[in-house]
This record gives sequence, structure tokens and C-alpha cells, in this order.
Amino acid sequence: MIKTDILIIGAGPTGLFTVFEAGLLKLKCHLIDALPQAGGQCTEIYPKKPIYDIPGFPEVLAGELVKNLMKQIEPFQPGFTLGERADTIEKLEDGSFIVTTDKGTKHHAPIVAIAGGLGSFEPRKPPITNLSDYEDKGVEYIIRDPEMYRDKNVVISGGGDSALDWSIFLTDVAKSVTLIHRRNEFRGALDSVEKVQELKNLGKIELITPAEVIGLVGTNTLEEVVIKQGAEVFNRECDHFIPLFGLSPKLGPIADWGLEIEKNAIKVDNTLDYQTNIPGIYAIGDVNTYPGKLKLILCGFHEATLMCQSAYQRIFPDKRYVMKYTTVGGVEGFDGSKKEAPKAIVKSID
Amino acid sequence: MIKTDILIIGAGPTGLFTVFEAGLLKLKCHLIDALPQAGGQCTEIYPKKPIYDIPGFPEVLAGELVKNLMKQIEPFQPGFTLGERADTIEKLEDGSFIVTTDKGTKHHAPIVAIAGGLGSFEPRKPPITNLSDYEDKGVEYIIRDPEMYRDKNVVISGGGDSALDWSIFLTDVAKSVTLIHRRNEFRGALDSVEKVQELKNLGKIELITPAEVIGLVGTNTLEEVVIKQGAEVFNRECDHFIPLFGLSPKLGPIADWGLEIEKNAIKVDNTLDYQTNIPGIYAIGDVNTYPGKLKLILCGFHEATLMCQSAYQRIFPDKRYVMKYTTVGGVEGFDGSKKEAPKAIVKSID
Repeated sequence: MIKTDILIIGAGPTGLFTVFEAGLLKLKCHLIDALPQAGGQCTEIYPKKPIYDIPGFPEVLAGELVKNLMKQIEPFQPGFTLGERADTIEKLEDGSFIVTTDKGTKHHAPIVAIAGGLGSFEPRKPPITNLSDYEDKGVEYIIRDPEMYRDKNVVISGGGDSALDWSIFLTDVAKSVTLIHRRNEFRGALDSVEKVQELKNLGKIELITPAEVIGLVGTNTLEEVVIKQGAEVFNRECDHFIPLFGLSPKLGPIADWGLEIEKNAIKVDNTLDYQTNIPGIYAIGDVNTYPGKLKLILCGFHEATLMCQSAYQRIFPDKRYVMKYTTVGGVEGFDGSKKEAPKAIVKSID
Repeated sequence: MIKTDILIIGAGPTGLFTVFEAGLLKLKCHLIDALPQAGGQCTEIYPKKPIYDIPGFPEVLAGELVKNLMKQIEPFQPGFTLGERADTIEKLEDGSFIVTTDKGTKHHAPIVAIAGGLGSFEPRKPPITNLSDYEDKGVEYIIRDPEMYRDKNVVISGGGDSALDWSIFLTDVAKSVTLIHRRNEFRGALDSVEKVQELKNLGKIELITPAEVIGLVGTNTLEEVVIKQGAEVFNRECDHFIPLFGLSPKLGPIADWGLEIEKNAIKVDNTLDYQTNIPGIYAIGDVNTYPGKLKLILCGFHEATLMCQSAYQRIFPDKRYVMKYTTVGGVEGFDGSKKEAPKAIVKSID
């Protein structure tokens, strides 16, 4: 059982910044995310795209923003349960919560902060009848650990950035990379498309277009994919089939937690602390809704900050927290680190 | 008469970021600030101090944050009335406002956003009976334009960072620099104190300590200061006397605008748009108060953003604004500039 002060569901920018604000209050955080790494959409969907409306950044790549946030929260040593989806919640008699993931990992905390963005990202799956038989037995929709593909025969299908970028990346790792797309045209960053063309010319990527994977073959684990190209149907030996058709966000099991839901978002009290209808559960960032709500990262930061104050009061009803500016009080990490402004000195001049 | 869409009172971080969010909505902004430059406290009081709680910046100097914000809003060409304090407000029949500064500059706008921080910074003045007779006639409390002191004899008094830093700076500009402090000890950054010691040893700064300026002499403009050092009292010829005893924020004339005030802050409606009790006047950032308010820069950013949406609806009651993410829609400047994410291309690989 993982124990923490604030259990954060969703490791996107809002969830990550919560760790910082909680840390200033000496509260520990643990984050759960269905994706295999922190950063939410910023990392998974558009790491190389610029964001222009983060205050103080005339332009910042989404991936860079996440890196900066990870660095900012490092002193507060957050825990992570990644690649697992928060599935069920149970309220104990003392008012605290146990959240269990789809893989059975249990987390216990007095406060739950849902920073789930648009929901957990579920892969779009191709319509292959026996697809589910091979999930985690040769079929993966998200690449969690590229090392898994070392010296393996890999078939990727898809025509967007993910399919292009992973095909490029895996040529250095896998024994063979085959890229299958139902059109001849790919849609992505110019340099990615050109790089795939180059690797194809060098024989490092085999390209089969326009074509589709229409079946899977194998005893226990995947052994072959069945490919349809025009009128022709043929099999191709492979160890892994990775359909990369995009991720689509779903509020998912959280929708069944008894929270008040409106337009696929969780209703919160924006007059004070972004608490949901269940005391002790907050919702912050894109996942929540209230009058005038804007789904902007900068709003999530504010919501997280006010939420932490409320969480502190809930955990320590008798303590009064006096806010200290970081410029004045510095930042004391749980790892013993201390950042602070250089102190003024008092010195005579003679 | 200066005309704009949103008249922002206070050019600190919150006021500056308002220009950006307004710009995305194609609304123009003009800012008034009593200080001679943009940035508020960040620039005037602690430009070289680090802030640790701006989301995405593990550490940023206050002065750097302001520079970044100025760069971020540049495409939206804000106007500035600096070194003037917003003094009076008049509501016209059409619901718009005229704001007049202490120097008589008039501004006209349908929306007023007060982002006045802790108030306008008023200098702490030394107790010299005829001090006010020489204000702007040789006595200045804030250095607006260092060029004003070229080849002049300058007397600075004070023992903190401002007194130290300006003494250092003006040695390159003024004919002579005399620094007077009532103690032998100065309080400031180590390198500033050391630099003053060095300049004193080189004869570039004359130091008179422990001493005080107790009188001013001159026909029309300042000609001499009267200095008391121990039992001794003597005069010193000078063109300028600059007492740098710090700035203290005062809500000032805004307190008389008919706004609901609570604990020296302006009450706003935090359930929607940070509007004050006077429709069309908003208060954002440190100057406002509501249940759970935190005086943090990051909260000001959020408040500014929601406020702009409300301002837009007020200016264009019949238009419906559909928010576009900057990553998707880019940023179109009023100067014709356009920033946007590189577009994906569609290209066949053969």
C-alpha cells in the first residue's frame, strides 16, 4: 500500500505543479497516470509543439514545460505510479481514501486531487477481430520501454507522427522495422517524413503502402500479421505489432466515483477550493468545470495552488498556515535541499 | 485623450500578462503605473531576487520574469503611461470610464482592470522641514532617468540596496557622488557593498557616515544640503539630493473610487470574473481580495485570464468567443506578426 498526503490522479502539468505547492506546505504527493511517463498530453501528444500562453514564456515546447516542472518539483520527491489507470476509490471511516489501479496497486491518502485532464488516454484500436487475444503478448498500443523491442521484428502501423517517429527510433533497436499505412501519404513533421524516406531508401525501414493489417496469427504470443495490400493478402513474421492510431481521452472509471459530472467534466466549488461534491476529493485543471471555466494550463496552476491550501486545512484543522513568499522564505526540499535568495549582508564601509 | 479597450492600472506581472490574454481576444490595452518603468515590485524592489514558485520556472529572477512578460506581450503593442499615478475615475453615461493621472493625463476605456498590487509605491521621505519645496527642483526620490544627473553633483542618502546600487551606477555619470548614511554599516548584496568600498577607496564616491542630511538650501532650485555628522554641522554644494529610504505601497486614490474595500484590498467576485462592485471595473492580482485569496503572481495570471473573457463579453455582448489554444491557433500580433506551431505536412513516401 502506497501512503501519501495528497494522491494526485493525472501527472500532467497541473498534477505536477500540485506537488510543488503541496511541498511548500510540507505535504507529500504521489501521482498516478495511465500513460507510461509524466507530462500528460504535453509529453504524449505534442512534446515538440510550442505553447505561447504560459505566463513568462513567450514560447515553450510542451515537452520542455514538463521538464521544467519536473525539475521544479524534484526537491519534493513525488512518488509515481505510471502506466496504470486509477480504477476504484473507497472512502474509509476516517474520511481517507484508497485508490486502486487497473493493475491492482493500492494507494492510501487523506486527500485525492483529480488532475486528470481530458481523461485517461486510451489507444484507438484497429478493427482486427482477435486483436485483444494478443494484447501484451506481442501487441502494444503505447511504447513504454523501447528496449523491449531490441533485436525483435517489429511491425508498426499508422500514418502520423507517432508511427513515423517510433519507426525512426526503433531502426536503431529492433532487428527489423516494417511500417504499414493504408495510404501512401504520411502526415507529420516534415523532417520526420523525410527521415523515414531516407531510412526506407537505406533499407532500414520496410514500407508497405497502401496496406492494412487485417489479422493476427500465433500460438500464445504473436507470430505473424496478415497484411492486405490491394487485392493481395499475405503474412509477415513478426514479434511485435504496434498499431499507432492515436490516443483518445476518456474520463473512464472516475465517472463512476459518485462525483457530480457535467459535460464530461467534474463539477467543483470554484468559490473557494475546487473541491468536488465528495469532501476530500478535489478536481483541478482541465478535468473540472465551473462557471467561466477555461481549460488552460495556467488556470490549472492556480486551481492546484488554492486546492493545496484547502487540503492543508483539512489535514491539519487546528494549524494555521502563514504563507511565506518563496523569494523571502526559499524552498526547503524533502531531500534536505534548500534554495533561497542570497541574503543581504550588513557591513561597514570605512 | 488616450483611448483603449482595457485600461490597466498597474504594470506589474499581472497587469502585463493581462495584455497577452486581452490580445488573444483582439482587445487592446494601455497601462498606467506610478513607477517609472514596467514590472511593479519585481523591477523596482527586487529585480535580482529569485522567485521559485512561478510554474515552469524552478528559479527565475524577478527582473527576468518581467523581461519575459514584456517579450510575451510585445506583439500586442500595449501603451504605457509611466511615472504617473491614476488619481481619479469618472464613469460616462455609456458606461465607459475616464481615468486621469496626477499629471493630468486622461485615458478613456470601456473596461478598467486594476492590477495595482499592494498599491502605488510612495517613497519614504526623510524628516526635513523644507523638503517638499525642492521636489523636482533638485530633490528626487526615484531615479527615473540617470541622464538627468550627467555632470552634476549628486548627494544620495540611504543605507540599503538602492542607495548602494545607484551610488555605484552614478559614478559613471555624475560629476561627483556623495553617499550619506546615518550608520557606518550598509545593508545589501555583498558585491554592492564591496563595490562601494572600492569606489570610495578610488575617490569616486565620497562617503559621509554616520551622518544625516538635516536641511536644504537654495534659491528656486537646490544648491546645498546641510549635513549633521556627530556634533558637527556643515553645508555641501550639490545639484541633486536623492534620499533612497525605500518605497512603501499605498492603495492611494483608488481607495476613493467607490470600490468595496476590505483590509486594504478591493473585494471582487471570484465566482466568475473578478469584477468589483462597479460593473466594468475589475481588480486582479495582489490588489484584490476574496475568500481563500492568495497574493501570488501565479494567481494573478489566472485572474487576468478569466477577467479578459468577461471584459470581452461586456464589450461585445452579442459575440460568442470560441477559445482557441495557442498551440493550435498560434498568436497573431497587432503588429502583423504571427507565431504558430510548425504545421504538419502530408507527403507520400515512395
